[in-house]
Amino acid sequence: MTELTKKGQLAKKAAMVLMTADAETKNKALAEIAREIEKRTDEVLEENRKDTEAAVQSGITKALLDRLTLTEERIKGIIDGINEVIALPDPIGEVLERTVRPNGMEIQRLSVPLGVIGIIYEARPNVTVDAAVLCLKAGNAVILRGGKEAFNSNLAFVNIMRDAVERAGLPRDCVALVEDTSRQSAMELMQLSDYLDVLIPRGGAGLIRSVVENSKVPVIETGIGVCHVYVHRDADLEKAADIIFNAKCSRPSVCNAAETLLVDESIAGSFLPMAKLKLNSKNVEIRGCEKTREILGDSVVPAKDTDFGTEFGDYILAVKVVSGLDEAIDFINEHGSGHSEAIVTENSEAAEKFLRGIDAAAVYANVSTRFTDGGEFGLGAEIGISTQKLHARGPMGLRQLTSSKFVIRGNGQIR
Amino acid sequence: MTELTKKGQLAKKAAMVLMTADAETKNKALAEIAREIEKRTDEVLEENRKDTEAAVQSGITKALLDRLTLTEERIKGIIDGINEVIALPDPIGEVLERTVRPNGMEIQRLSVPLGVIGIIYEARPNVTVDAAVLCLKAGNAVILRGGKEAFNSNLAFVNIMRDAVERAGLPRDCVALVEDTSRQSAMELMQLSDYLDVLIPRGGAGLIRSVVENSKVPVIETGIGVCHVYVHRDADLEKAADIIFNAKCSRPSVCNAAETLLVDESIAGSFLPMAKLKLNSKNVEIRGCEKTREILGDSVVPAKDTDFGTEFGDYILAVKVVSGLDEAIDFINEHGSGHSEAIVTENSEAAEKFLRGIDAAAVYANVSTRFTDGGEFGLGAEIGISTQKLHARGPMGLRQLTSSKFVIRGNGQIR
Repeated sequence: MTELTKKGQLAKKAAMVLMTADAETKNKALAEIAREIEKRTDEVLEENRKDTEAAVQSGITKALLDRLTLTEERIKGIIDGINEVIALPDPIGEVLERTVRPNGMEIQRLSVPLGVIGIIYEARPNVTVDAAVLCLKAGNAVILRGGKEAFNSNLAFVNIMRDAVERAGLPRDCVALVEDTSRQSAMELMQLSDYLDVLIPRGGAGLIRSVVENSKVPVIETGIGVCHVYVHRDADLEKAADIIFNAKCSRPSVCNAAETLLVDESIAGSFLPMAKLKLNSKNVEIRGCEKTREILGDSVVPAKDTDFGTEFGDYILAVKVVSGLDEAIDFINEHGSGHSEAIVTENSEAAEKFLRGIDAAAVYANVSTRFTDGGEFGLGAEIGISTQKLHARGPMGLRQLTSSKFVIRGNGQIR
Repeated sequence: MTELTKKGQLAKKAAMVLMTADAETKNKALAEIAREIEKRTDEVLEENRKDTEAAVQSGITKALLDRLTLTEERIKGIIDGINEVIALPDPIGEVLERTVRPNGMEIQRLSVPLGVIGIIYEARPNVTVDAAVLCLKAGNAVILRGGKEAFNSNLAFVNIMRDAVERAGLPRDCVALVEDTSRQSAMELMQLSDYLDVLIPRGGAGLIRSVVENSKVPVIETGIGVCHVYVHRDADLEKAADIIFNAKCSRPSVCNAAETLLVDESIAGSFLPMAKLKLNSKNVEIRGCEKTREILGDSVVPAKDTDFGTEFGDYILAVKVVSGLDEAIDFINEHGSGHSEAIVTENSEAAEKFLRGIDAAAVYANVSTRFTDGGEFGLGAEIGISTQKLHARGPMGLRQLTSSKFVIRGNGQIR
């Protein structure tokens, strides 16, 4: 039996116990996790130092090193996050629907845990705790498979969490870490359909594509964001410039940042120079269509076809002039990733047509795409942003980590 | 470009139109389908005759031939089914949640169609219409891939439906049939993730396993049922005998029929002979554990390990004597397929523990497992019974053929 099969079996057993655990027990486990992390902060920092030192030696990029690094302050942030999750209502055992049938049997649809959740992610040790805590709160066991660069940090966190849940009277195997961080172990996890109920990849486009294509376990696809802001001819141009600046520049690396600006032809001449002025303050590279370059001049890089539909994750913006609303809707439905799309217009008819016609997780009128986020939507905490249509779409909070079952009570009904 | 890629593209375009179609237009399309099938019944029957004649020549089993055969009466049944779907409320455009955030933006979660649904099924031509009509009502385009034995019948139905939806002002490509019925075309459909949002296999265990293992398109797993009836020591034995008889014998071929009977040791001596007497009237073959055979005698076939957890789909019942509630719950969670499980007991504490502790789509106290069905649950119509935990669990009606999107309206909010 491989390491993973064994871990899968143990996690499934643990999930059966968690399935019937009450809110108090689960919250106690989370509180123990918070306390234990606080107590063993030095241990975590020391293990993290091993990871960061090895990473520096192997020549990791500055951005990746930053994501990998833990500090006392960041650990405090993780603990605050746990306390926020404790404060959220328990998503399990809710009666979602109820009906009494003509034959007298009563049918309830109850929220229940999913079971065992696998998370595949990159070298971000905070995800180890954030994801595990959300899974546990929703009554799920979790198998974590993080990036190899963060292995020592992840193992420290997982050992702490296993000790803590045990102290709360739950099985240690509610939380497990895949210790083999080879590519092969990720592939093996994707075949573990006997024990895993869901697999959630968190990370870059390559990781997510690989999981979607290879997994036999049901996958929730998260996080690829090719978001558009479309400035309609009836837009308030000041508002539009603020929105595209915010959507592009407030945090270009995240999935709800804008990658493409579409502008109606009739206002492009007045709007594009305004927008460029603002974007210049952050040295945004504009890659424009031909008409954009006619207006903004040759300093604008000519856009290639592949620039549209690309997630730059950087201070780069593709710009295209369109004939109007219909072209904008078609263009977005073809080039977007189904994440977040915005129209800017004072014309409510145009806004409603856009909101109806765009096929994406979040569609905005006169709001920056940057709001697509569990916290901003009021879900409390988020495990990711689903860009698929099955099960969950958009920011996924606790409820999206649950399933349901029908419970039927009767007195001898037969059919 | 292959036949399927082309069909995928056209279906996706059609889905974009359907996405914004109102309830009236969709119902008009369904009414046109009903009218057109009625008008062209002779054409359907003639095409069906080609299929059945070829099937007889190739030595098909009687049961399969029966499923393949259409009659005037069965076609009337299909038309009645369409009219029932027309009468159901439109599942699209419903505001599922609504909130206004502190910054003034309003967030709605709206029900929307899934997009393009693929259905892979066996030689049952009624499924062609039943499934397409449910998909259309929920605003989805559908690509049908039926068994080759029913090809002529399916093509006749699909041509009729395409003519009908066009007459209602919708694109013909809302409904498409995969005309290549080779194994390869099914495999190709499973790779069509650029155009398909969901794939639903309907049929036997082999078909479903193949789709789950090979599909890159998200799958909803349906229909495998290894259901148990557990008779607790505090059961009303008459009720228990009625329930196991109904669950096993009322229609043994369907997925919600019982396959295994578990009986508490303390009442096995009195209950098993009672149950056997009833089951004898349908010549049910009992495959019993050792203790069962001690009670019922050597006429009972000794159960092999593999008999537990098997979907017989026939007048065969595996029987096991257990020590009590805990063993029963563990045994069912290990051997069941997560479909439908029942306890019979007058002890409400035992019943509640069972209802809580069993991990299945439908869990019953004192009711036959045979009720797990969209119609019996009051959903109106059903596209299948999901045995997975993601997206939908249990009988899937119209609502399970929808997704949702967040619609956010504001006046210039930035983050």
